[in-house]
Amino acid sequence: MGVLSLNDRAKVVADDLTARAGELGVSCHFVSGATVIDAGIDARGSLSAGVMVARTCLADLGHVSIGAGHIDGAEQIAVPQVVVRIDQPVAACMASQYAGWQISIDKYFAMGSGPMRAAYGKEDLYNDIGLREEPNCAVGVLETSELPGADVIGYLSDRCRVDPHTLTLIAARTASITGGVQVTARSVETALHKLHELKFDLTRIVAGFGHAPLPPVAGDDIRAIGRTNDAVLYGAQVVLHVTGDDESLQNVGACLPSSTSKDYGRPFAAIFSGYDHDFYKIDPMLFSPAAVCFHNVETGRTFAFGRVNHEVLRASFFDG
Amino acid sequence: MGVLSLNDRAKVVADDLTARAGELGVSCHFVSGATVIDAGIDARGSLSAGVMVARTCLADLGHVSIGAGHIDGAEQIAVPQVVVRIDQPVAACMASQYAGWQISIDKYFAMGSGPMRAAYGKEDLYNDIGLREEPNCAVGVLETSELPGADVIGYLSDRCRVDPHTLTLIAARTASITGGVQVTARSVETALHKLHELKFDLTRIVAGFGHAPLPPVAGDDIRAIGRTNDAVLYGAQVVLHVTGDDESLQNVGACLPSSTSKDYGRPFAAIFSGYDHDFYKIDPMLFSPAAVCFHNVETGRTFAFGRVNHEVLRASFFDG
Amino acid sequence: MGVLSLNDRAKVVADDLTARAGELGVSCHFVSGATVIDAGIDARGSLSAGVMVARTCLADLGHVSIGAGHIDGAEQIAVPQVVVRIDQPVAACMASQYAGWQISIDKYFAMGSGPMRAAYGKEDLYNDIGLREEPNCAVGVLETSELPGADVIGYLSDRCRVDPHTLTLIAARTASITGGVQVTARSVETALHKLHELKFDLTRIVAGFGHAPLPPVAGDDIRAIGRTNDAVLYGAQVVLHVTGDDESLQNVGACLPSSTSKDYGRPFAAIFSGYDHDFYKIDPMLFSPAAVCFHNVETGRTFAFGRVNHEVLRASFFDG
Repeated sequence: MGVLSLNDRAKVVADDLTARAGELGVSCHFVSGATVIDAGIDARGSLSAGVMVARTCLADLGHVSIGAGHIDGAEQIAVPQVVVRIDQPVAACMASQYAGWQISIDKYFAMGSGPMRAAYGKEDLYNDIGLREEPNCAVGVLETSELPGADVIGYLSDRCRVDPHTLTLIAARTASITGGVQVTARSVETALHKLHELKFDLTRIVAGFGHAPLPPVAGDDIRAIGRTNDAVLYGAQVVLHVTGDDESLQNVGACLPSSTSKDYGRPFAAIFSGYDHDFYKIDPMLFSPAAVCFHNVETGRTFAFGRVNHEVLRASFFDG
Repeated sequence: MGVLSLNDRAKVVADDLTARAGELGVSCHFVSGATVIDAGIDARGSLSAGVMVARTCLADLGHVSIGAGHIDGAEQIAVPQVVVRIDQPVAACMASQYAGWQISIDKYFAMGSGPMRAAYGKEDLYNDIGLREEPNCAVGVLETSELPGADVIGYLSDRCRVDPHTLTLIAARTASITGGVQVTARSVETALHKLHELKFDLTRIVAGFGHAPLPPVAGDDIRAIGRTNDAVLYGAQVVLHVTGDDESLQNVGACLPSSTSKDYGRPFAAIFSGYDHDFYKIDPMLFSPAAVCFHNVETGRTFAFGRVNHEVLRASFFDG
Repeated sequence: MGVLSLNDRAKVVADDLTARAGELGVSCHFVSGATVIDAGIDARGSLSAGVMVARTCLADLGHVSIGAGHIDGAEQIAVPQVVVRIDQPVAACMASQYAGWQISIDKYFAMGSGPMRAAYGKEDLYNDIGLREEPNCAVGVLETSELPGADVIGYLSDRCRVDPHTLTLIAARTASITGGVQVTARSVETALHKLHELKFDLTRIVAGFGHAPLPPVAGDDIRAIGRTNDAVLYGAQVVLHVTGDDESLQNVGACLPSSTSKDYGRPFAAIFSGYDHDFYKIDPMLFSPAAVCFHNVETGRTFAFGRVNHEVLRASFFDG
């Protein structure tokens, strides 16, 4: 990984976002000494800010771009594709990008992602992957509807064991331009997370490539959670370069794509609503890309699972 | 917009173009103290120079790339797609990129674009959008068949109220590699311009994404004007992120795509020729992307209008 | 070409690869004073390292990216497309990228590419294109299964007439993530090489654009040579911007795509095996992109030849 920590790497991108705040539609605040970047709450944000937030989440271990694309049956509507390639998948996606820290302080709630999680290091995940850090700075991304106040800064800097002056937080709601891009950049991460749930040895994954269609910004955060999940669950296609034996790939692959879940088939908003908006009632096996392909770089064989569901994507993106 | 003016922002890109002149196939001249970059008149130019000229036009407020693509019915011919994402649409596309300055001095003629227009500020458009500038430097792009001489430099530096030594002009003919890319990068701009014609409040447009197929360089500028217009009118697909009510989007959308014009349906060269090459006889409603989709970021609803016309694109690009 | 030599230009990219070695999965060694970058032999490499090695091969005269794509009949498998645009085709592809130097020293073998070839300058090709160099440094890419030792360093620095301390070599096997990307980035180069074989005047080619599907890493180098060749021979689509008359384009085009070869039609591994793995028995006319289109920038006419063969691509990539 070189000499820079994940948090140091993310800091370089976050500092660039700060320097270009005006053109990117974000605003910078100082709260208890910490830098808080509003990338999509009161600020408008932008597609380019979304790309930079995605890069921050990934500790810049890869490449994020937005290319041209379409959804079958709606070819006349341009649907940008968020394309990622990942160079150190476990560090980039699991130690950093995964939104594994549910930050709940009194009435404040945020899904926390980015390398500050590795500085905190209390998620069980780090027992499996290692990669905990004691950095000189911490950088986190908050998917939330509210900017963090002094209490949140105190809480996070304490848990990350950094001085608040070295803490940088980027906040955007799900229902924002920036938020949509950063979530849709999670195609490869979602595959890794599902594989971890299936007890697959993540160190076998040596490179990743993926893309997912960027959903239209929804009218509220609940609906936005629906659409951004649909983008991945029904629209993401991922290639993972892996090592090791083929048989285990065939076995795990049979359980891997979202279509293997009993909850698969309807837009996420309908599933969520059907469970009275109780996240924990949703089958955890649902959270996976629509299609995942393994390339075994040792045997040269390819194993592909799942398929894009254009029908659900159309219903989610355009009929809502 | 931060502290840099549009002209300052464009200057950074133009200076990079100058520094890399040799590899990008452009040549730099000094005329009356001004910097004149030949990017496609006597110089050959290049695809990468085209990307940089497009970025200069946009005052670098976004991203320009060239991706893979095809035209239906001609899948065996690779047709590069010029893809743009725009972060400050009104500033980038209207105050800067729009080719709104017809520069006519004796026998010299050029379509002027780029942020020097904001320094001049005499187009009526600026009464609506503001964003006039009094910069320390001015940067303009000239779509023209002739390099500007001392008279043009004097005229432009006078009107932009800058010292000629701080004026940078990039010139390319329409029928050049560079010129083709920079015009095809106008997918989102063309949508904004048509919306302005339709009296739509442009401040409602908060982000843009678009792509159009790069036409083959034509044998002369008249034919090149035909093909580059066809690329946008029959080939561009645009997504605009907007605020405000839905009803106005439905209303304006019904008049928005190029197909709503009475002149729609034939290659632009044939339309132009049918009007004896008198630009002002062409229905102004024709100048719009083939397909435009609104994403209302406040209501979450999507409204799509128009469609790509592959038949006209094939006739224009490959049968000419 | 500006003041920098091809080797100086490549050195900038190679130095960046060295500086980012950890994140890109490559390792750096010093052998007899030369810098040897293992980008895919004992090191794992990465997709991003592949992009940087491709840029090194091209002396950074263009742009290399990885976009989304598919193969017909296997739409559920994401197949990344390696997309290149080339600004100085003869210098970038022929003087630098072409793998024209077969380096054979005792038991050591490598296909040598990159601008060190121009420093050596002994290939007949340079009699036709010029562009020999006497640079202060030399940079080469080795497609090989073994890292170069002191004997190879001595041999290459001697022939390139540079001090070993100024020699940089990047090595990757064909059957590696990095190696796959760098070979698949040869779509335009392969077209130029075939045209040179057909005695076409390469100075007529003023710009290039191309893409080819990235094959899965194969289980061994022989199979990897099969798949990477198939990616280009059956999957690459190239556009060349050319000058001069149309008739010569039609004439040369009829012999240009890979399908004009008597050996065309089966996966390369099968062809190779059918000739007892004797490269020199393979019809040299086979080595060409699947589809090539000329844009004559002087006449405005387009001439297209060949087609992508999805059936062979599926067999090569997924059934092997």
